Amino acid sequence: MSDTGPNTTPLTPGSTIGVLGGGQLGRMLAIAAAQLGFHTHIFSNVPGPAFEVADKHTVAEYEDEAAITAFAKSVDVVTYEFENIPRATAEAAMAHAPLHPSLEALETSQDRIIEKAFLSGLGIPVAPYAVVTRDSKKSSSCDAPAVPPKFPALLKTARFGYDGKGQVRVESEDELADAHMQIGLVPSVLEERITFAREISIIAVGCANGEVRSYDLAENVHENQILKTSTVPANAPDNLTPKAHVMAERIIRALNYVGTLAVEFFHCPDHPDGPLLVNEIAPRVHNSGHWTLDGCLCSQFENHIRAVAGWPLGSTQRHSDAVMTNLLGDEIAAWAEIVAEPSVAFHDYGKGDARPARKMGHTTRLGPLTIG
Amino acid sequence: MSDTGPNTTPLTPGSTIGVLGGGQLGRMLAIAAAQLGFHTHIFSNVPGPAFEVADKHTVAEYEDEAAITAFAKSVDVVTYEFENIPRATAEAAMAHAPLHPSLEALETSQDRIIEKAFLSGLGIPVAPYAVVTRDSKKSSSCDAPAVPPKFPALLKTARFGYDGKGQVRVESEDELADAHMQIGLVPSVLEERITFAREISIIAVGCANGEVRSYDLAENVHENQILKTSTVPANAPDNLTPKAHVMAERIIRALNYVGTLAVEFFHCPDHPDGPLLVNEIAPRVHNSGHWTLDGCLCSQFENHIRAVAGWPLGSTQRHSDAVMTNLLGDEIAAWAEIVAEPSVAFHDYGKGDARPARKMGHTTRLGPLTIG
Repeated sequence: MSDTGPNTTPLTPGSTIGVLGGGQLGRMLAIAAAQLGFHTHIFSNVPGPAFEVADKHTVAEYEDEAAITAFAKSVDVVTYEFENIPRATAEAAMAHAPLHPSLEALETSQDRIIEKAFLSGLGIPVAPYAVVTRDSKKSSSCDAPAVPPKFPALLKTARFGYDGKGQVRVESEDELADAHMQIGLVPSVLEERITFAREISIIAVGCANGEVRSYDLAENVHENQILKTSTVPANAPDNLTPKAHVMAERIIRALNYVGTLAVEFFHCPDHPDGPLLVNEIAPRVHNSGHWTLDGCLCSQFENHIRAVAGWPLGSTQRHSDAVMTNLLGDEIAAWAEIVAEPSVAFHDYGKGDARPARKMGHTTRLGPLTIG
Repeated sequence: MSDTGPNTTPLTPGSTIGVLGGGQLGRMLAIAAAQLGFHTHIFSNVPGPAFEVADKHTVAEYEDEAAITAFAKSVDVVTYEFENIPRATAEAAMAHAPLHPSLEALETSQDRIIEKAFLSGLGIPVAPYAVVTRDSKKSSSCDAPAVPPKFPALLKTARFGYDGKGQVRVESEDELADAHMQIGLVPSVLEERITFAREISIIAVGCANGEVRSYDLAENVHENQILKTSTVPANAPDNLTPKAHVMAERIIRALNYVGTLAVEFFHCPDHPDGPLLVNEIAPRVHNSGHWTLDGCLCSQFENHIRAVAGWPLGSTQRHSDAVMTNLLGDEIAAWAEIVAEPSVAFHDYGKGDARPARKMGHTTRLGPLTIG
């Protein structure tokens, strides 16, 4: 696809954005698209909360090539709300409509082994890691590309992990084989457990005209490996923003990336490769960027739609300080108290069933702008 | 209905808001409702841009009582995006679901004769006017309730006028009969043409708990009797905001009003009844409040939904200065230049056909907050 280059003809309002995935990210993308005058067609294997704010939807398996083909033929561009899209699905879509972000971005972020090699190849620091596979003698073995990871470490499946799923803590080398058994002996990455001051992320956007813009850094707190809060500005030294922006920009350029990208960092002021080590990248709008809906003129969702439509980017400037808090499971039941608070934006994703730890909505508490 | 009082049980997220009218106001209401976790059911006599962001829609005539009944039975509250709802329609809806704003608000704003008498009765100044009817001898006659209007004046039909439709200028008493003929000899109001410094509006919201909040005043410029721009803060003395708020609050209390209300004023610093004379009221979200989408944490649309759902109101505080500009007819064709501007929010209502003077979208230009 590299010789076609990015799509440079902007889509006119009235065009249709195709979105793979019908969850809350697809829902917020569809709303952003509608505000710009676009129609949205959601494709998902199950009915989801995006459906009711979209013009059209298709329910079919992602592996259903005929359904993907019909979907891609009916839209002007295809994008996605999650990165675990099968390669064949992406290729079937690309036969009939531009795909943004690129297949390369999808494939890189789908596999921790590819992702870490890609980042290291760009000179972007990551935590020391080793690739863990099962060798022909049926024992799990480590292969560290550079500095070997120290213990304690985390063993993570290379593919299909999210929100802490497919991860296990490994205290010493002796535990590795058992740990690998626990996660199904699939190709994995053993990551050194970095001591960090805080977790930080940047939401950046690349577009067809080559411009890259970033939002201010968010400081993220996870509970049970699920994002709980994102606070902007991050309580971190000022010089982190340009450093994070430069890394995001390098990733975007290397992947011919069009759309919103999230880069998650460990902030390690004392680490020899610090102060910022990349934890992972997500080729999509991201939970740690939800604060942009209420804190910025142009949200990560609108900027994603602008980018995939071939439009120039909107402002990533922040007009307020913001704290985004996820509402997980039955935390959504506190809606009545939340909406009675002053200066709080309440978002409910319209999911009926408040299963434990399910992302049901979020709040954004706004305050007067301070310099981050 | 006065003994039932306002609906005080808040609707839970997942409830359904019924909206009469499927235009851009219904569309922006549906988006606001979705963000709070509500479903929306749009009822309209023609397919409209609200349909594609709503969960359900019904196409039927407003006079179709069976269709209105089925609609009202399927929703938890009924609201509307336009005030020219027939009384029978409102009553049919109210038989099965609460109606907000009230029937009284609808009836008052539907008829300029009732509206002006209502405002005058509250001690709220309006331009000198007379009621014009056709008497039994088939000649048009004037009946001024207080101070008779001076010429030049405007003759306006009592009902079903909007955007300057149903209005004719009358230079002297001699022209009155002809002017009345021009607008079909229907009951009308002859209004003195007030010399004003500027047109101003306030967007206020009333809710079930009795609280009334207002947004900052907007200064409005009309072209060809259609709103062109709304600027916030208005270029007017500071003490206008509390004056306007007090009048809006008086109207809201008198009408048991739940929802967003627009009050349009003439700012007449030198008029004996000044400085603010009410031009008209609109019992709904209003074009001169579109700037709140991008300039405030909680827009007029979200506050309308909060109010009709029995929720407490959201913040009406402004985080930025704003200039809203309507995009009429083929002005929408300039979208590519508009979206390339920094700090401009672009809204396209998703209407296909850019007929002359049709409201196709709007822009909001934001700037740093100054005191209004």
